[in-house]
Amino acid sequence: MTLSKQEMPNQNYLCETEQTLHYEIEEQVMQLFASSSQTTSIEDKIDNIIHDLSQEFLSTVNANTDIDINSLLGKFCESKIPLEPANFESYLQDLGKNVITHSIHTSSPQFIGHMTSALPCFVRPLAKLMTAMNQNAVKIETAKALSFCERESLAMLHRLIYNFSDNFYVQHIQNNSSTLGILVSGGTVANITALWCARNAALGPKDGFGGIEKEGLAAALDFYGYKGAVIIGSELMHFSFDKAADLMGISTHGLIRVPTDCNNRVDIQALRQAVIECRAQNQLIIGIVGVAGTTDSGGVDSLSEIADIAQEAHVHFHVDAAWGGPLIFSEQHRHKLAGIERADSVTIDGHKQLYLPMGIGMVFMRDPHMAEAIEKQASYTMRKGSFDLGKRALEGSRPGMALFLHAGLNLLGLKGYEFLIDEGIRKTQYMADRICMMPEFQLLAEPDTNLLLYRYIPEPLRELVAKKQLTEIDNQLIDQFNERLQKIQRQIGRTFISRTTKTTVSFGKEIPIIALRAVIANPLTTEEDIDAVLNDQIQIASQFEISNFLEAIEKSV
Amino acid sequence: MTLSKQEMPNQNYLCETEQTLHYEIEEQVMQLFASSSQTTSIEDKIDNIIHDLSQEFLSTVNANTDIDINSLLGKFCESKIPLEPANFESYLQDLGKNVITHSIHTSSPQFIGHMTSALPCFVRPLAKLMTAMNQNAVKIETAKALSFCERESLAMLHRLIYNFSDNFYVQHIQNNSSTLGILVSGGTVANITALWCARNAALGPKDGFGGIEKEGLAAALDFYGYKGAVIIGSELMHFSFDKAADLMGISTHGLIRVPTDCNNRVDIQALRQAVIECRAQNQLIIGIVGVAGTTDSGGVDSLSEIADIAQEAHVHFHVDAAWGGPLIFSEQHRHKLAGIERADSVTIDGHKQLYLPMGIGMVFMRDPHMAEAIEKQASYTMRKGSFDLGKRALEGSRPGMALFLHAGLNLLGLKGYEFLIDEGIRKTQYMADRICMMPEFQLLAEPDTNLLLYRYIPEPLRELVAKKQLTEIDNQLIDQFNERLQKIQRQIGRTFISRTTKTTVSFGKEIPIIALRAVIANPLTTEEDIDAVLNDQIQIASQFEISNFLEAIEKSV
Repeated sequence: MTLSKQEMPNQNYLCETEQTLHYEIEEQVMQLFASSSQTTSIEDKIDNIIHDLSQEFLSTVNANTDIDINSLLGKFCESKIPLEPANFESYLQDLGKNVITHSIHTSSPQFIGHMTSALPCFVRPLAKLMTAMNQNAVKIETAKALSFCERESLAMLHRLIYNFSDNFYVQHIQNNSSTLGILVSGGTVANITALWCARNAALGPKDGFGGIEKEGLAAALDFYGYKGAVIIGSELMHFSFDKAADLMGISTHGLIRVPTDCNNRVDIQALRQAVIECRAQNQLIIGIVGVAGTTDSGGVDSLSEIADIAQEAHVHFHVDAAWGGPLIFSEQHRHKLAGIERADSVTIDGHKQLYLPMGIGMVFMRDPHMAEAIEKQASYTMRKGSFDLGKRALEGSRPGMALFLHAGLNLLGLKGYEFLIDEGIRKTQYMADRICMMPEFQLLAEPDTNLLLYRYIPEPLRELVAKKQLTEIDNQLIDQFNERLQKIQRQIGRTFISRTTKTTVSFGKEIPIIALRAVIANPLTTEEDIDAVLNDQIQIASQFEISNFLEAIEKSV
Repeated sequence: MTLSKQEMPNQNYLCETEQTLHYEIEEQVMQLFASSSQTTSIEDKIDNIIHDLSQEFLSTVNANTDIDINSLLGKFCESKIPLEPANFESYLQDLGKNVITHSIHTSSPQFIGHMTSALPCFVRPLAKLMTAMNQNAVKIETAKALSFCERESLAMLHRLIYNFSDNFYVQHIQNNSSTLGILVSGGTVANITALWCARNAALGPKDGFGGIEKEGLAAALDFYGYKGAVIIGSELMHFSFDKAADLMGISTHGLIRVPTDCNNRVDIQALRQAVIECRAQNQLIIGIVGVAGTTDSGGVDSLSEIADIAQEAHVHFHVDAAWGGPLIFSEQHRHKLAGIERADSVTIDGHKQLYLPMGIGMVFMRDPHMAEAIEKQASYTMRKGSFDLGKRALEGSRPGMALFLHAGLNLLGLKGYEFLIDEGIRKTQYMADRICMMPEFQLLAEPDTNLLLYRYIPEPLRELVAKKQLTEIDNQLIDQFNERLQKIQRQIGRTFISRTTKTTVSFGKEIPIIALRAVIANPLTTEEDIDAVLNDQIQIASQFEISNFLEAIEKSV
């Protein structure tokens, strides 16, 4: 619509209104930025509202609300940015109603299906502190004390893994030419970083050849006389290795996934064979990966045996201990990681079993000079010889997450973490025992750590399970039942268990089956909570539409 | 030392002590995790201490303390994890004394040297909320409402860039097969992600060839008949592009850095020539990069002209607008980004000019299906057809940073961000004008946005500057002077300006010179603060050891 001349508002009037709006906006914005003493009122008000919202959220027992996904997404369909600043009170009210209420209660004691759990209370005020400090860990000029604090925290974990001499740590802990570890946003970036270092080191500068960094992958393979490059590990390697293989140009076909045994550990014979075959095919083996706690089932590879193979083959040995690394805190369970100290690089996630907030991945390096293979510089920062942590890292600007790591190591201590690890594994064993005793369930593997795979068996099929006479069709029916069960359980939202697929042997044939997957990492989860989750599943199975499936099964049996 | 038999403590006694210690640890740890009502006392105590520490930190005017780097790093040399949990009060006291005190006051109005600044007050309580919620944005099962909230926030910025129809957004905003943008940890990962998509799309599956993802870079180049692959952009491209080129296997030599003009914009003729040459050499051009706000100087390339070149060449056009992207909020300055709407992908950082905490990078895609080129799946999650955001992303587990983005867009609004952008550029112009008026300084380029390059000219050389008669040796002396000046200023810690290198022409020859670099992005910075920073530099220049340099210069003149 175009306004005719006489309808157009007075030009001066418009300008005046605009001017007034401009001042209002300026005032509103500057109030939000005003230095602390002046903002006390607004920030305190927001803080109070958020405190209440947080407390309510944290004290909710249910894993989730039962809102339907389509109704939920309907609340988030606005593609236009609001013109003017919203009133913070009504904004927070909406946030509570639409976002917080329908978020997953990852701290709920009966949410035992993923690797997110309750966190120690100090991380919440620390998050505020980190944001108040707004350091950028990429360089010393925006993160002075924090750069050293980060190096110290990483050195502590490095020592726990490698246990080198006092002298080693004196030499490297605050030496700007050494890198004991890199703090990254998560295990994926940690794994990619480790393999990036390994690839660049294996195809480095030599005899006038500039190295892969300067000359590229194709030229480097050519110069060194390789037909291609591969990464070898268990079939249960995390999907971040697919990303690494794709990103680094060696292809997902170059990611060789070796079969595992019934306990989800890589088959050592098959691994050795894969190495021999790659060598015979003139493939560069960039790295051999050992998994310490698979995402699927928590299984820990036999790291010592993999270390032997890597050592014999003179190949980089990387351990993805994103999940299982903290077992090293436990006197009782540490032995499961034996051999990790021989790894060239190790990934550990702080946001998993170090009970720290999301966004803390770490990669540790046996050789403090390994990260030089990926070093980059920039003139406005990242200068050679500086303490800029961003010199040797995939990421650039990043938050001061080291604050959490440092606090965790100090406020929980070795013994605190040991307790948490031991308890998780103890309770997982409790759940495994319960499952074995309950006719409704079948345990699918003895747990190595604190992940558990099991499934519900509909009544008509239980006898066949006991006799090990399930056909492939029976397994398909059980699969459908369990998938449905998990979805309904998630939708109701009282409790939560995730699901995955697992390979099993049926009449001598390997088939994939659907498994329910429990992750017992929440210190608040009690044995009663575990019982409650299992009983919830039994109750769901006996009600709802699942009964239809039962009929189908009965007919087919 | 080994204890002799009679010195060894009684075995039972030891066990009892151990048992007691175990219970004490258990109690301490469980207190930290106890559900909200019970922890109120501990969490509230920590919150109070941290509140005071934060407020003190935020209200400090100086950019930094003057502690010597060696004394500081000496405080962080402990490589052993404490055995038992520390007392939180003494821990926080130490944290305050060692870490917080010696951190950079990035919110100080006189810290105008890097892209970190004061943040709006709502981000601090929100950080606590995000940590309390502990969502993992990788999948819907650990981030239900948040996944949709994130998609909505990204769609809002997508619309600001591309301004497609209502219908387009209705169709894609909450469609699990569409990706309008990806939230990542920072601009580096955003740039890498964009080029990864571009590379995989350019070398995708075809005529029985599986594509680069499955077959690798060497095979893909071979199949498509390319000699190699390159990325082309300005010489001022961020160093994340070196990382991308290295990581993706195309080599840093394959990152073609085209010269810029005196205003730090890529030379369009040279860019066009580079494209022609790469074509002639049978190189695949993965992408042409336009920079909207160089890290060095804030310069914005002529995006429309680059878009023309990319379009003619049928090449992916990526815009790194990590810094300058938010100019799009400003009616007055938006025209500088003209052409950005023709980009295939755009990087914008939330933790830069959206005034949000560290850890928020974003990449936007013109084609909602572009990200399929990097899609990965995993059985325990990331299922096809799900709303799992981690399906199409470099990173895996990640925090619910969308909370900040959503709050920023709503609580500041279009007009709020416009005000912030306009103010930054207005104050930068003020600083440029001041510098031009002051005999002590030389402005090195007219600012495009809110970065400013200048340098101090020692008195004996000022006449030569005016006459444009500086020799290369004069420039070297000025370089040494400015480097020293910047280091002393940083060390004293009252104010802060960073430094970089810039190419300049001296007697027809291109030489690199050292530049002081101001970044005016802090809403708290006033014109008086800018004067204070410049006066601080003049004062430092006239005192301290710099006077020695002056003598040297006087002798040489």
